[in-house]
Parts: sequence; structure tokens; C-alpha cells
Amino acid sequence: MTHSPLPMRVPAAGLPPRVRIHEVGPRDGLQNEKAIVPTDVKADFVCRLANAGLSTVEVTSFVHPKWVPQLADAGEVCLRLDDLPAGVRLPVLVPNIRGLERATAHGARRVAIAASATETFARRNLNRTLDESLAMSAEVVAQAKGQGMHVRGYLSMCFGDPWEGPVPLEQVVRTARALADMGCDELSLGDTIGVATPGHVSALLDALAADGLGADRLGVHFHDTYGQALANTLAALQHGVTTVDASAGGLGGCPFAGSATGNLATEDLVWMLQGLGVETGVDLDALVATSVWMAERLGRPSPSRTVTALARKE
Amino acid sequence: MTHSPLPMRVPAAGLPPRVRIHEVGPRDGLQNEKAIVPTDVKADFVCRLANAGLSTVEVTSFVHPKWVPQLADAGEVCLRLDDLPAGVRLPVLVPNIRGLERATAHGARRVAIAASATETFARRNLNRTLDESLAMSAEVVAQAKGQGMHVRGYLSMCFGDPWEGPVPLEQVVRTARALADMGCDELSLGDTIGVATPGHVSALLDALAADGLGADRLGVHFHDTYGQALANTLAALQHGVTTVDASAGGLGGCPFAGSATGNLATEDLVWMLQGLGVETGVDLDALVATSVWMAERLGRPSPSRTVTALARKE
Repeated sequence: MTHSPLPMRVPAAGLPPRVRIHEVGPRDGLQNEKAIVPTDVKADFVCRLANAGLSTVEVTSFVHPKWVPQLADAGEVCLRLDDLPAGVRLPVLVPNIRGLERATAHGARRVAIAASATETFARRNLNRTLDESLAMSAEVVAQAKGQGMHVRGYLSMCFGDPWEGPVPLEQVVRTARALADMGCDELSLGDTIGVATPGHVSALLDALAADGLGADRLGVHFHDTYGQALANTLAALQHGVTTVDASAGGLGGCPFAGSATGNLATEDLVWMLQGLGVETGVDLDALVATSVWMAERLGRPSPSRTVTALARKE
Repeated sequence: MTHSPLPMRVPAAGLPPRVRIHEVGPRDGLQNEKAIVPTDVKADFVCRLANAGLSTVEVTSFVHPKWVPQLADAGEVCLRLDDLPAGVRLPVLVPNIRGLERATAHGARRVAIAASATETFARRNLNRTLDESLAMSAEVVAQAKGQGMHVRGYLSMCFGDPWEGPVPLEQVVRTARALADMGCDELSLGDTIGVATPGHVSALLDALAADGLGADRLGVHFHDTYGQALANTLAALQHGVTTVDASAGGLGGCPFAGSATGNLATEDLVWMLQGLGVETGVDLDALVATSVWMAERLGRPSPSRTVTALARKE
């Protein structure tokens, strides 16, 4: 009989003792999957993830259904969440004031807004200039903070932009500073097209720290387009970052079907952190079982290496 | 028009200026693929890799065809290599004296031997006790060194063993020391089942250095079974390692077809090193084109994230 596959626990110097994983599978994952998942399955997915030990699960996005039909049932999903462990954080994405109002009406206490570090992505994705989109975000943040909500700010295209190419550090610092100044409690630095490498991650974190934005206020959000997500995460941990975004099963883009935009798989992250002796509170077996269950519902295997390896052993 | 996808070059502190990639696709990759590739395609593959700038390409293994029918034409492949750039290194694996004799007869000037860090793998894979297998390796190394050859020693199961579980550091140091003492010019530390995490890599390199085996004599050989290969490579680079094994296109185990034993993909490694400003001499476009060409011959897509992403843009 072969030995149970778990990494040997060997802590490394200079890493944080604990990391909070911000699970984005139900929102960032499912919004980028072609399949439209039934509402009950979505709610069940969120609850299973929370019960696998993920302390923060981003539930959905209150975006207009015209833009993201996959998440048209955002309100219904929020109302069907039950069997949740105590203290779990359940943020939702709100693209604008209308989204914030819908989120509030459905009981959300934590919201996330999305902004771009580049002019071109702001124009293409949000149909506004960068400054206009930041002004709109400021309005949403002010209203959410006025209601006593916790606000996360996603900053897209922090490393590269498909139209502009590499993004200068100072441009990212400027937009991150704008999000912080408008009241975001936490920023998530997105490598939306997956081009970052570890030195670039270190340099950006240094530049942000020099502007007063320390690791305690930052999360990192890497995509595995070029296979760099986990190495980039290691670089971020070495800089003191303790919030890492990941998507259960690597949901959100299937790297072997003509689309290579997947999020970092939560399981691959948990494997590394377990080996490093960094606490996450996550039960890896329960998480893998959840991703296998969701992959069956999506009708295709998970792109996560760890899910693939562990599911095979079951 | 979107921007040409290349990582922004941002060097990180404490990394070597140059890394030598030891390309194992034609040997370690093809020996683990189900398909039997025609001899001409194998020879062409080696030449294309060398012309893409890989300075070391492991050509084949002179193992008995009964065990690895995929490489039964090892001698023929060596004889058909032409159109090679000057100075390229072309090692071959030799499992025993008979293999060494065949390799010599076919013009090999560099050989590699394979040993195990664990008793169980030695017995299962080599049908000998660990000490017996080391004694056999010593004989091969002595004869190869007597012929003036460069000898690389592969050490398997340096982190975990499917039967024994986690492998104690001192056991790896003991077997690595034995390989060094018998005359191996270079050792390749293999994470054969892909369970290693970065702290474990650091700890092993520290333990080896304490025994006098410094990074200048070591290479690392990671498998991406749990998605850890590139993060582990980063940890090794931070410890001064400058020889990294990788397999073009991630050949050697397809992570989405019930087997998750693939090697680190050379393209994913090159992407990270380019971003870090670490010289490799590799032309990434030529390498990706080679892996796409080989994937067509194998009749399935490459598991490399970088190949998938860049091939999609062509």
C-alpha cells in the first residue's frame, strides 16, 4: 500500500505563520465558466467551501445579468446560503451603486469593488476613462462605508495589460493609492493576464510599501496562465503578504481547452502552505472532494494539479 | 491589437545571473509517454531543442527495451543527430554496464546514472537493495570516468516515496554523498512524486551544503504532480542552484488524463527566468513551436500552461 500523499511539513524562514485564503471560485470562477450552474448548486458550493475551512468565500457578483448571465441569480444565491460555520466572511462583488443596493437588500455585509490599473482596460471593460471609473468606485465605496460595510478593492492589470503591455509600477501605485484613499479596507492586486514573475511581484510590493501601502492591507490575486501563480505567491509571502486569492479547483478558465486564464487553484496553494507549515484552517481532503463534486456538475475535469492527483488516489 | 505576451524583466535580489536548463524531454519525457515515437521524430526533436538554445539535451536511455520499449531505438537516435549547434551537451542515461557499453559504441561522451534515495524504490525499481544498487552504480561511474566521460547522478525520491512517505534529509544526504564519492560530477535531486514544497527544498539544500555538497554541484528535478515545481525551483534558485531539469512541453505524464506525474515544463521555467532576468540562452518562441510540433505527433495538447497560452495566440 502506498503512503498517504501529504507534503512533509518543513517551514521556511521569513514566512507568515498564517495565511487567509480569499476563495473566489463561486464568483470569479463561475463567472468565467461557460456553463450556467443552477442556483442551488451555487449555494451548496459556497457552503461546502466554508465548511472545508475557507474563512472567506466570495459568494457572487451583483453585476447586470446582461454582462454576466452566469451570475444572474446573485440575490437568490445569497438567500439560499445555510449550514454555514460561525464567523465565515461572505463578500459579494458590486460593480456600481445599483449592485450595492441589490447586495444590501440581500443581506451582504462585505462588498468588493473592481477597478483597473490601466486606462485601456478601464475603457474596454468599464466603458469609462480610468479617472471616471475611479470616481464611480469612490461613490460606491463611500456609500458602502456609510453603511458600515467592509470594502475590498480589486485592482486589475497590476502587472501586464493585453493592450498596453507591461504596466509601470508607479501607475499601479497611483491607482492603489486612490482606492486606499477612497476607503477600501483591503486591496487585491490582480495579475489578470497571468504574466507576472516573482521579481515583478517583489518590486510592486516594495513600491506600494514605499507609498505607505504595507502588506497588511494587501492581498494578491494571481492567474496561472503561464504557470507562474504559485511561484508569485511564494514571492508575495516572502514580502509579508498574508491574504491570497484562489479559486477552488482552479475554476475560471480551463487551461487545456483553448482558454488559459485560470485562477490559482486553491488546492495547489493549500498544498504548498501545508508543506511550509503556514496555517490556513483548510481541510484539503474536504476541499478536493468539493472541487471534484463541482467538476462533475460542470462536466469537465478540474485543471488543478493537486485535485487531479488526489482525486486519482481515491 | 493586443501586446506581444512576454514577461516584464524585473530581476530579484539574490538569484544567479544565469541558469543552465538540463532538458529531459526526449528521455524522461518520452519514456513516460504511452505513444512510441518514430526514431526520426525523436532525433529531430533533440535537434530542434538544441537549436532553440537548450545547451544540454538528454537524448535517450540505453535501458533494456523490455523495460522501456519507448526508447528501444536509443542507439539509432544517437546516430541520426545532425544539424546541432556547436558545443551542445548530449548526455544519455545508462542504467548499467551493458548500457554504458552501448552508449560508448554510439558515441556518447556524457552519461547519467540513476539511483534511489530510498530502500523501497531501489527494491521496486531496480530489484536490488539500496546498497547493492549503489555498488552497481559505482561500477558504472568508475568505468565511465575511466573513459573520460562526464557523469551525472540522478537521485530519485529525494522528498517523498510512495511507499515510505516523507524521506528524512539525512537519508538523502547519505545517498547523495555516496554518488559524489563514487565520482559523479553532478547530482540531480529528484522529486519523483512531486510532493516537495519550498521549505523542504531549502532544508535539503542546507543539509547537503553542510555535508560539503554545494549548489555548484547540484541540479534540481521537480515534478508538477501537485503544481509545486516552479515554486520549488524558485526556492532552489534562492539557494544558489544554477542547474534546473525541465521537460519541453511538460512531456512525461499528462496531468489531465489520469496521470499527474509530469515534469516541470521547460516553457513555464523559461517564462519565469526571463521575467527574473536570469539568462538561459533559450528562444521561447522556438521552444514553444517545438513543443506544439511534438504535441501534434503525440496526438494530444501539451500540459504546459505557457505552451497552451502562447500557442493559442499564434
